[in-house]
Amino acid sequence: MQAIAVKRGEDKPVIIEKPRPEPEPGEALVRTLRVGVDGTDHEVIAGGHGGFPEGEDHLVLGHEAVGIVVDPNGTHLEEGDIVVPTVRRPPADGTNEYFERGEPDMAPDGMYVERGIVGAHGYMSDFFTSPAEYLVRIPESQADLGFLIEPISITEKALELAYASRSSFDWDPTSALVLGNGSLGLLTLAMLKADDKGYENLYCLGRRDRPDPTIDIIEKLGATYVDSRKTPVDEIPDEHEYIDLVYEATGFPKHPFQSVQALAPNGVGALLGVPTDWEFEVDAGAFHREMVLHNKALVGSVNSHVRHFEKATVSFTKLPQWFREDLVTGIYDLDDFEAAFIDDDTTIKTAIEFGTI
Amino acid sequence: MQAIAVKRGEDKPVIIEKPRPEPEPGEALVRTLRVGVDGTDHEVIAGGHGGFPEGEDHLVLGHEAVGIVVDPNGTHLEEGDIVVPTVRRPPADGTNEYFERGEPDMAPDGMYVERGIVGAHGYMSDFFTSPAEYLVRIPESQADLGFLIEPISITEKALELAYASRSSFDWDPTSALVLGNGSLGLLTLAMLKADDKGYENLYCLGRRDRPDPTIDIIEKLGATYVDSRKTPVDEIPDEHEYIDLVYEATGFPKHPFQSVQALAPNGVGALLGVPTDWEFEVDAGAFHREMVLHNKALVGSVNSHVRHFEKATVSFTKLPQWFREDLVTGIYDLDDFEAAFIDDDTTIKTAIEFGTI
Repeated sequence: MQAIAVKRGEDKPVIIEKPRPEPEPGEALVRTLRVGVDGTDHEVIAGGHGGFPEGEDHLVLGHEAVGIVVDPNGTHLEEGDIVVPTVRRPPADGTNEYFERGEPDMAPDGMYVERGIVGAHGYMSDFFTSPAEYLVRIPESQADLGFLIEPISITEKALELAYASRSSFDWDPTSALVLGNGSLGLLTLAMLKADDKGYENLYCLGRRDRPDPTIDIIEKLGATYVDSRKTPVDEIPDEHEYIDLVYEATGFPKHPFQSVQALAPNGVGALLGVPTDWEFEVDAGAFHREMVLHNKALVGSVNSHVRHFEKATVSFTKLPQWFREDLVTGIYDLDDFEAAFIDDDTTIKTAIEFGTI
Repeated sequence: MQAIAVKRGEDKPVIIEKPRPEPEPGEALVRTLRVGVDGTDHEVIAGGHGGFPEGEDHLVLGHEAVGIVVDPNGTHLEEGDIVVPTVRRPPADGTNEYFERGEPDMAPDGMYVERGIVGAHGYMSDFFTSPAEYLVRIPESQADLGFLIEPISITEKALELAYASRSSFDWDPTSALVLGNGSLGLLTLAMLKADDKGYENLYCLGRRDRPDPTIDIIEKLGATYVDSRKTPVDEIPDEHEYIDLVYEATGFPKHPFQSVQALAPNGVGALLGVPTDWEFEVDAGAFHREMVLHNKALVGSVNSHVRHFEKATVSFTKLPQWFREDLVTGIYDLDDFEAAFIDDDTTIKTAIEFGTI
């Protein structure tokens, strides 16, 4: 079968031939439909994660997949089920408490591999296998955009943590700010628009000039675009209002500090970006004091697990049809897979098609 | 009646004469038994809070009180009830949503006054009045140390916020670290010792040389004393272990950052100190990344409300008798009230006695 991989010492994806995998006991065989591309893939290609599977000279890319079960192999799944795989798997030395209790997303470094990211092959191949417990069934109506379920699940988990942190008192947020207008930021903005919390005012921060397709989506969602070059995060209260929920998807380490200043009393900031080291001066006293005197919280969130994927299939149905169409700017065949990795100002979300139902 | 107050322009407490207050409708009249002294009182005396009640040239001190109802004045209370008053009251311009829903501790600046701290007289007087809804009944057996209920309630709220932030997943903490060996730190350490979470290893950070009464208490509680001059917070994992829960009661703005490095995966830091501005360089990238990749949280917490006081009366009963005795290093009569404000290395917790049952 064909697969898209990055080879050791190279920094661009290539098509390779691999044997079709055989499912082990407890695993199902899945025929791949589509696999999304995101910023993490670009980091993997650039060597930023760098975890090749043991003894392998290549890593098959892709962690945002949707496929169709072709061999349930005695598991609870059925042939023809449309499924989305989760990303984390036990490490080579075996399972551990986090996997045993169904929360691999809470496992620390070294206690997991991530398919397509670190230590395990991803899903950009004609077929893949997975333990059935990590394959989440989705409705057939979601199959064409099922590669969005994984990124949506990332936000499900982050919002779950953020809301949990505010659950010991009566919290009634009315404003939310998404930092970052990439595909995850826009998905989150659309999810917040449909959120049960009933946000009245939504904001999304980027650094783009108009005309821009992401700004169009932001405004079509009824949200306000904030240009970070004109209005840094900590000036948003002056320009607009204090914000109850900040969702950070930029990986810019000034944002946690600026967010605490922009948060309304009792607000929470969810952090999702993964920056490298960067030392700079901050008013740590003001940060600390503001956290305390106004009962603010910061929660970090990484990855997601089965429950969040299941929630994501519900959230997916609430995303407007126009939004899904505008968000996905390209679906590419294997012949044209390089186009899916082009990241310019006209690209929002792309996916590679390996097959159809 | 007599009261202990700080006058405008002065920086030490004095005894003054005031008329005995008359309860308004909905208020009860309370005869004061004892009032505790804490770091906030010292800050108020030094002018750090500076909010005198409108039109007054003095502020009666004290926010950690216990008293006995002498005139229920038609409220639900009864004569002889032992009560502890909460601290926040509506501001001069009237009540607001936070008070209406029973969560004045979540109100932002300007939407409250604090008795004995900012904008309202405290409880260091022979009698005080309070709306009955802010008077929490406690068992008579707790009357002698009832001034500890308010500080315990501060920790009840902080732990509630910290635990809520970890409630969306299966969190089983085994280690906790208290930053600060003042009376609040020691109370918290003793509370964590008795906590349902079943912490196996407790640590308490200070900067004192042995022999020291707080170190004695820390070790008698079975906890490990950490001298911050030898082992900064971010070196605790090397010296001891990674920590699931950090409780910060130092107001030292390096502690939030060091705590995130010391936290175990999925750990939480509760922040309670209130520092002034202080700019310095931090590795903000490492802070941000560590928060995200290990699902860590920071929660700020200030003040407490009726529910936390009620919880505190339960927690109080779990504190060992020896601990209560060792913690309270002095109870002083009005004649000798200055002694209660001396803060040296032999002082842990003091209170002033206005009367007895």
